[in-house]
Amino acid sequence: MNLALITIGNELLSGFTVDTNAAWIGKKLSKIGVQVSIHITIDDRVESIVSTLKSVSDKNAVIVTGGLGPTHDDVTSSAFFKYFDDTPQFSEEYWEVLTQRFLKITSTIPDLNRNQAMIPTKGTTIPNPVGSARGLQYEKDGCTYFSLPGVPNEMKAMMTESVLPFLEKKSHHNLIVRTIRTTGIPESALAEKVDIILREHPDVSMAFLPQLIGVDIRLTGKIESKISSCQHELESELGDLVFGYDNEGLENVVGTLLLKKGLTLSVAESCTGGLLAHRLTNIPGSSAYFKGGITSYSNEAKMKLLQVEEDTLERVGAVSSETAIEMAEGVRKLLKTDIGVGITGIAGPGGGTEIKPVGLVYIGFSMGEQSYAKKFIFSRDRKGNKYLTSQVALNMIRLTLKK
Amino acid sequence: MNLALITIGNELLSGFTVDTNAAWIGKKLSKIGVQVSIHITIDDRVESIVSTLKSVSDKNAVIVTGGLGPTHDDVTSSAFFKYFDDTPQFSEEYWEVLTQRFLKITSTIPDLNRNQAMIPTKGTTIPNPVGSARGLQYEKDGCTYFSLPGVPNEMKAMMTESVLPFLEKKSHHNLIVRTIRTTGIPESALAEKVDIILREHPDVSMAFLPQLIGVDIRLTGKIESKISSCQHELESELGDLVFGYDNEGLENVVGTLLLKKGLTLSVAESCTGGLLAHRLTNIPGSSAYFKGGITSYSNEAKMKLLQVEEDTLERVGAVSSETAIEMAEGVRKLLKTDIGVGITGIAGPGGGTEIKPVGLVYIGFSMGEQSYAKKFIFSRDRKGNKYLTSQVALNMIRLTLKK
Repeated sequence: MNLALITIGNELLSGFTVDTNAAWIGKKLSKIGVQVSIHITIDDRVESIVSTLKSVSDKNAVIVTGGLGPTHDDVTSSAFFKYFDDTPQFSEEYWEVLTQRFLKITSTIPDLNRNQAMIPTKGTTIPNPVGSARGLQYEKDGCTYFSLPGVPNEMKAMMTESVLPFLEKKSHHNLIVRTIRTTGIPESALAEKVDIILREHPDVSMAFLPQLIGVDIRLTGKIESKISSCQHELESELGDLVFGYDNEGLENVVGTLLLKKGLTLSVAESCTGGLLAHRLTNIPGSSAYFKGGITSYSNEAKMKLLQVEEDTLERVGAVSSETAIEMAEGVRKLLKTDIGVGITGIAGPGGGTEIKPVGLVYIGFSMGEQSYAKKFIFSRDRKGNKYLTSQVALNMIRLTLKK
Repeated sequence: MNLALITIGNELLSGFTVDTNAAWIGKKLSKIGVQVSIHITIDDRVESIVSTLKSVSDKNAVIVTGGLGPTHDDVTSSAFFKYFDDTPQFSEEYWEVLTQRFLKITSTIPDLNRNQAMIPTKGTTIPNPVGSARGLQYEKDGCTYFSLPGVPNEMKAMMTESVLPFLEKKSHHNLIVRTIRTTGIPESALAEKVDIILREHPDVSMAFLPQLIGVDIRLTGKIESKISSCQHELESELGDLVFGYDNEGLENVVGTLLLKKGLTLSVAESCTGGLLAHRLTNIPGSSAYFKGGITSYSNEAKMKLLQVEEDTLERVGAVSSETAIEMAEGVRKLLKTDIGVGITGIAGPGGGTEIKPVGLVYIGFSMGEQSYAKKFIFSRDRKGNKYLTSQVALNMIRLTLKK
């Protein structure tokens, strides 16, 4: 079963909005064996929408998102009514529902919302459990067309409750997709390392997905046992380079390891400014092992809160191996945890010198009787350097806990 | 001048990777008056690429990203050579350059990289200042075609150094785009509020872009004075609902206000887990006003570091107005700043009760003689609740500083 995805909106074409809906939809569909074979983004003019619907009418299904809101640039319903030659009707009943919903949060319902109460004659509406814009569903020449809002949480609720169950029934085979996440090796070296394994598994297709923090290997196939055997060969070839699977981030992996070992963690951050704590606390239940963090953005905070020695700061500076270790030890002592991590560096764009350039980072680690720091030089922009640093710190924790 | 953007990769269609390149490219192009009229994502098969190139050959320019890497699923060069009926040659010279570059970071260059040394006969190569895959550029029937790698920092460097300057010369008029960012009002109410202004400015096109944290209004037009007059009318109608312009986040706005007033800030976070500090420190130079943050993920940390009273925690609990205020006052005192913010709440999915449901958040604020807290109930998932909380906290700071 193959499907075309159409996302509508000038804001997507002009780059104002990053299209995260498309990725979410693609992922959900792969899981039920439906392949997105093309994804097209167009502007919000009725003619563009109609001609694009025509161009993909050879698919089994078409999902359109966006353009169902109440304002003048929301024209998807009109385009659907035109393409399917339909005459919609105003639903007094739904208008009443909408009015009641609005009165709960504001004193009046804008007239602009009236167009959201128009219902199709030849097609059906798709309920929206979390918002005012309902979707549309039509059948034509063996293809099912869905129109959904572009607001992510509304689109997701409607996909989950209506569209995915419908498509799952129509889809016959489920594709198995497994992702193996690696870090610490460039894409071409990784590809060479696993080349023989790739050749020995003709029923498994393998893709390399390079990202800021590592390269993911995605395996796709129809037979579970063949995917598994390929996966095991890759794992034994790659060893510790593999940090996780599928959607697992390093923060999940580290959390699971800490839980399993019954260890607690605290972090002291300078150049990452809270990002490491933020990533750790993105995991539900993280309060069981993550006790807290200190973002020490000044030397005073480093000394006062983390007991970094004034002498150290004067002798080797805030961005140094010694300071990173003292921060790790300091936060560990302060928050009484088994592990302490201390990060200090220069995220940029300013603040670099010849000896200590932008991107220079020290990560300190303290656990048991052992304290040490590692030095890195990253070459991204401020946000990229922050992110890479948080990733490398999480990887240091993972590798230590795996020993 | 209109342009088609083609992004290549199964990982985009299956949602494994979010296509952030497209948004970046769209934004850069709008600034030089080039409109992306269609964006198509396809899989990495030569036939798909060739047929898609044909389908957009009526445009003035086509940018293709992805599929220039060294592995077996990188077939864009082959598709270009086929579409332009070109016979490429192996460049010993570039192979030598590549080899030298690899030897700097690893002991050997994988043979897989040889295909990156193939150069076109009918077209030209686009230099890649930060990676090994060079781009391709061809002219055919009045349309210029560019092929660039999909790795974001390589694509961006090549766009900036080669493609954008080339297109800017060919583009004749510059579109003016201005975005007015609002928070605290739903899209339809906003649209109704500004409806008359919209009608009175036929030369300015207005789009509403709802997002998690507010609605942006984007104005587009060709004449600066008309955009400005429309903008001023919107500003006086909307007042404090407007928090910034274009790419400005609330963290930028708050940073600028703090700098201007010479005030310093510290934050104590529980349910946001470091996100507020992370956002504040994403701004270069933030160390001038942001002194640090405490992520207190346990009651002990709240008492020990922030001097939250044990009695308060026992009487009204960690998620309460009182605790939020004591956290704000505590961090302010600890880090000796003019302003302290304290956040406590239940991000979910677990931890909620009937009286204190998931999404309940208190934000405490302390400045001068004044301390207070506000209560919110958010209804997103964990990450959404964290993000909304950080946004509302920043907005509280902004509104206080604007007074």
